[in-house]
Amino acid sequence: MKEGKFSKNQLRRYPIYLKFLSNLKEQGVEYVSSPLIGEELGYSQEQVRKDLQAISDEEGRPKKGRSVSQLIDSLESFLGYRENNPAILIGAGHLGSALLRYPAFSSMGLMIKAAFDVDPNKIGEMIGETHVYPLDDMERLVPGLCAKIAIICTPASVAQEVANLAVKAGCRAIWSFAPIHLSLPDSVILEEVNLASSLAVLSHRLDSLLD
Amino acid sequence: MKEGKFSKNQLRRYPIYLKFLSNLKEQGVEYVSSPLIGEELGYSQEQVRKDLQAISDEEGRPKKGRSVSQLIDSLESFLGYRENNPAILIGAGHLGSALLRYPAFSSMGLMIKAAFDVDPNKIGEMIGETHVYPLDDMERLVPGLCAKIAIICTPASVAQEVANLAVKAGCRAIWSFAPIHLSLPDSVILEEVNLASSLAVLSHRLDSLLD
Repeated sequence: MKEGKFSKNQLRRYPIYLKFLSNLKEQGVEYVSSPLIGEELGYSQEQVRKDLQAISDEEGRPKKGRSVSQLIDSLESFLGYRENNPAILIGAGHLGSALLRYPAFSSMGLMIKAAFDVDPNKIGEMIGETHVYPLDDMERLVPGLCAKIAIICTPASVAQEVANLAVKAGCRAIWSFAPIHLSLPDSVILEEVNLASSLAVLSHRLDSLLD
Repeated sequence: MKEGKFSKNQLRRYPIYLKFLSNLKEQGVEYVSSPLIGEELGYSQEQVRKDLQAISDEEGRPKKGRSVSQLIDSLESFLGYRENNPAILIGAGHLGSALLRYPAFSSMGLMIKAAFDVDPNKIGEMIGETHVYPLDDMERLVPGLCAKIAIICTPASVAQEVANLAVKAGCRAIWSFAPIHLSLPDSVILEEVNLASSLAVLSHRLDSLLD
């Protein structure tokens, strides 16, 4: 992996390139140009070229373009999809259970080793291939799992509390799906997926369109 | 609602303000200042002031600050949480089912009127309070439901195809959870929630932290 600073928006584009290139490969396409990628994904060709150069040393061949397989290799390697990133999930409700059963995570290198909940009906159960433990066991179990990522799917009202517990247990990155903004020490990575925020953008633009 | 241009990032902040203020109200807090909101949510006080002025005519009172209840009113009204926005959902798998059972959507004004799938085991079933219909019925049913929003939770491989069908059936906004970038006419609103992109940001920052 090349060193360098990557913006959030740039990082968000890499899985989108990878998915597009994987589809091309399935269709038997061997070479692809930056302008074609840009056109299909709605990015400028300069942006595509810059993004791909930042993660791959391979230059495209004149006329032929870049090797699809080599780009896929570079992207999977850069994104850590071939590593094992152990994670835990807290809050095995509807959304948490859906994420536990989401098959794409393992292909992204994300291994959810354990789930935690306070509901006696869930504790001791398997959801997908993951065992649900009592929340009280988290601090004891996390170090042995080497889990640095905690996925939070609890209601908003307890999300801050369980995030603090996860950090105390040794997690260094919080991926939160709870509909609230969390406050964490600067030494902890926080990435929030806020469905209400996403819906706000959609609804406002739809209202403007229909007015 | 005040007129004006709103950036995507600004729109994404409004539900976060609303959640924070609703929590304050539950705790019995009646007035709040922009600096306090900013401090709690990690925004500058100038940004908070500008965001709130754009959606509310009410000025804060010196020393007391702004009325929490009035801000909540303005935010709920601006975000359309008191309206009914009919929507459909396509792809009633794990993630789709989780969204169908997500109680917060109705409080955001989003009413999922029907779900569509191709799986004979799901067609005819109720998931939460929503009936699952055959995908083939979508074009016939959508106009009567007045649904302008289609939520797409299918695998990547069929997401583009079902998005096209939804647009043909009359939907004007696509909220996609499929892990692929969709291409749609400019007249259609597209908002994508890409978990792979979110995870890429998290993982890269975690790698940098642990190196």
